[in-house]
Amino acid sequence: MDTRLEGKRAVVTQAADYMGPAIIELFREQGAEVYTDETVLRTPEAVENLLGSAGEIDILVANLAAPANFGVSAVDLGEEIWAEAFDLMVHPLYRLVRAVLPKMYERGSGKIVVVGSATGIKGMPELSAYSAARSAQVGYVRAVGLEAARHNVQINLIAQNWVENPAYFPPAFTETPAFKGLLEQQVPLGRLAEARESAQLALFLASSESDFFVGQSIPFSGGWAQ
Amino acid sequence: MDTRLEGKRAVVTQAADYMGPAIIELFREQGAEVYTDETVLRTPEAVENLLGSAGEIDILVANLAAPANFGVSAVDLGEEIWAEAFDLMVHPLYRLVRAVLPKMYERGSGKIVVVGSATGIKGMPELSAYSAARSAQVGYVRAVGLEAARHNVQINLIAQNWVENPAYFPPAFTETPAFKGLLEQQVPLGRLAEARESAQLALFLASSESDFFVGQSIPFSGGWAQ
Amino acid sequence: MDTRLEGKRAVVTQAADYMGPAIIELFREQGAEVYTDETVLRTPEAVENLLGSAGEIDILVANLAAPANFGVSAVDLGEEIWAEAFDLMVHPLYRLVRAVLPKMYERGSGKIVVVGSATGIKGMPELSAYSAARSAQVGYVRAVGLEAARHNVQINLIAQNWVENPAYFPPAFTETPAFKGLLEQQVPLGRLAEARESAQLALFLASSESDFFVGQSIPFSGGWAQ
Amino acid sequence: MDTRLEGKRAVVTQAADYMGPAIIELFREQGAEVYTDETVLRTPEAVENLLGSAGEIDILVANLAAPANFGVSAVDLGEEIWAEAFDLMVHPLYRLVRAVLPKMYERGSGKIVVVGSATGIKGMPELSAYSAARSAQVGYVRAVGLEAARHNVQINLIAQNWVENPAYFPPAFTETPAFKGLLEQQVPLGRLAEARESAQLALFLASSESDFFVGQSIPFSGGWAQ
Repeated sequence: MDTRLEGKRAVVTQAADYMGPAIIELFREQGAEVYTDETVLRTPEAVENLLGSAGEIDILVANLAAPANFGVSAVDLGEEIWAEAFDLMVHPLYRLVRAVLPKMYERGSGKIVVVGSATGIKGMPELSAYSAARSAQVGYVRAVGLEAARHNVQINLIAQNWVENPAYFPPAFTETPAFKGLLEQQVPLGRLAEARESAQLALFLASSESDFFVGQSIPFSGGWAQ
Repeated sequence: MDTRLEGKRAVVTQAADYMGPAIIELFREQGAEVYTDETVLRTPEAVENLLGSAGEIDILVANLAAPANFGVSAVDLGEEIWAEAFDLMVHPLYRLVRAVLPKMYERGSGKIVVVGSATGIKGMPELSAYSAARSAQVGYVRAVGLEAARHNVQINLIAQNWVENPAYFPPAFTETPAFKGLLEQQVPLGRLAEARESAQLALFLASSESDFFVGQSIPFSGGWAQ
Repeated sequence: MDTRLEGKRAVVTQAADYMGPAIIELFREQGAEVYTDETVLRTPEAVENLLGSAGEIDILVANLAAPANFGVSAVDLGEEIWAEAFDLMVHPLYRLVRAVLPKMYERGSGKIVVVGSATGIKGMPELSAYSAARSAQVGYVRAVGLEAARHNVQINLIAQNWVENPAYFPPAFTETPAFKGLLEQQVPLGRLAEARESAQLALFLASSESDFFVGQSIPFSGGWAQ
Repeated sequence: MDTRLEGKRAVVTQAADYMGPAIIELFREQGAEVYTDETVLRTPEAVENLLGSAGEIDILVANLAAPANFGVSAVDLGEEIWAEAFDLMVHPLYRLVRAVLPKMYERGSGKIVVVGSATGIKGMPELSAYSAARSAQVGYVRAVGLEAARHNVQINLIAQNWVENPAYFPPAFTETPAFKGLLEQQVPLGRLAEARESAQLALFLASSESDFFVGQSIPFSGGWAQ
């Protein structure tokens, strides 16, 4: 039996979305007790409610996702899409982290894994709201990572792209010739990752194996971003 | 007489703040007609008002700044500081760019220079709201730069730090021994830049000399960020 | 019992140096059969000899190290130090990779882990020969990673610094007040990593958990490089 | 008349190759006295001879180029191509810089502009020798830039790609449909730069306008690398 997270208590946000299901499954296999919550964390109250119920937290998985809205140019981008990207992915991140840090600092250990995006480190045209919000996550993690380091709390981010998930890569899209051409051209590995592969990186970043990582955003994109 | 911007019409936002005065002075020396506006662009209406009065725009200088609030930890960071960083630096950027692009696309040329921050590409602890917002600017520019390229419109960003300006580096701070020690330790060049030096980079990015630059964030920080 | 490398055959070069001992120990604990060789791979023949004896290779750990020669300025840097950095760290890397790739391609799988340095991605003054050579490794891995991707062979690099090892951080140095001040100032985590922590990253990059990584250089430096 | 380099004495190496002719022309237009030498700087003696004849140097343009050898896989790469990349682009760079720094330090000012490649910061498959060598240049500049900063000597690099030059992009290649497809797919701007455009960046980096730049590698690639 595997035990890389034995004795650890993890919280996974937006548990039904994005990498939530795969991370929960793998973390449980590895011995963690996992508290899950499926709320989209649009408001300060939603974050408070979640953390009020979650109990003690060794590992926070900030799995935050919004609709990607591919193909909307900067000229056509409206207030709603713009605001949604920040409301769902950026503001809840800071509220979650602010809330969990004090107890982690008290205990002298803790892990925060942000499931982010490679669009936060590499440009993708006609996806500017999403990209800007994901870049804000990268910048937040970089700064807070430095603060938290001396408390032995590690906060790092998975900068992923081209990972299977029903929201961004639904089969109706991935089975088209257009998508296959895109994959061939854009992704050196020539395939999508399974969600479980991303979960393996989340496991590494949630375990004591990554205690020397500080505020990093690690590309996970089949070579799209290096 | 210098003429690197001869015949060009530029708009500089938040003209009294940050790099505004130095850029306006240099751009005029170089032959540009410069329209200035001192409004802090907190709302969509403020952006509309500015652009309604500005006339034709060859060059947009998105000079957006908010209080830096140095030394506020992620644990102590409140909603007001957080929201202000995005309201003053991120949301107006996207509104400005969306508004000016169509005419630039029509004309087949244009320059957008974002006066951003090196904290958008390198971590600085206890400055996480500001850093996250500046990183969002970097990500926005990266994505939109790719879109605008085929229209011969260049959007790039100055990732500056350690540049003289009364808001972030007031003399009351820069003349203390503590600041001098910080400068010695953090800035390889060992000095602050004058605002005019940053304006020289803005000039390069606003002129036809940088037509091959696409969505880039260029470090300007005396070696703090390389 | 742990089995993350069960059934795999690994080769670790310069086995007595740098991260060699820690990686060998951990890989064996994880079920790998590990072939070790302590030669410094200064010549093409040395590489040929090693690989002639090594047998089948699922995982190549290119653990290549040269004296660091801290504190030699660019002005004082002589031909010998310069050449040594490239002879010991750069040229053997390309020879090793060239030799192992064909069989990995034939088999349709393989892992190459380069134990490199964070000085290959971030500047350190008065260490220019070493830094240039480590940067060459980073660039080589980036390019070849892209080529090897379609063959399902992953080549990635550990960009480490501030990791315990007797050559770069001997106790006679690390126990001085000068070193403690340096660590305090330069390393956000405020400590050296143990070699075993770096080996954990090598394990991740050698296992099937990292099949979606392509030509990456991952910072491992306690926050010195993010 | 333009005067951005008035009163300055510049040396341009490998003057007939790569960006040499365009830089020489523009620097002279801007008032510089330019000493040129067409030697390929394969040996320490070649560097000594050049500098023995060059006289006083305010600006060194290290314009070093080797055959690119596109399309040679890591498996097929032989010792000759490998060695040539380092012999022509990396070793002469360190010899040139070491030789010119002492007088620049004495005078308290100086500029070194390295005409490098974007393959030193972004991966290109089947170009691994060239990419590794160009990455070594990037790493060398990063480290030495930090050393030279306190002496008010700036060393920076142009990380260019997709710039017209007869060696890498001969008309016989650029006029083929295959090349046009590549350009369309790989270069967001959709065109090659003229050599003069790269020379404009060299001018910026050679002038006093870039005094706050330290050891940087600036992408110049029409958006290929950002």
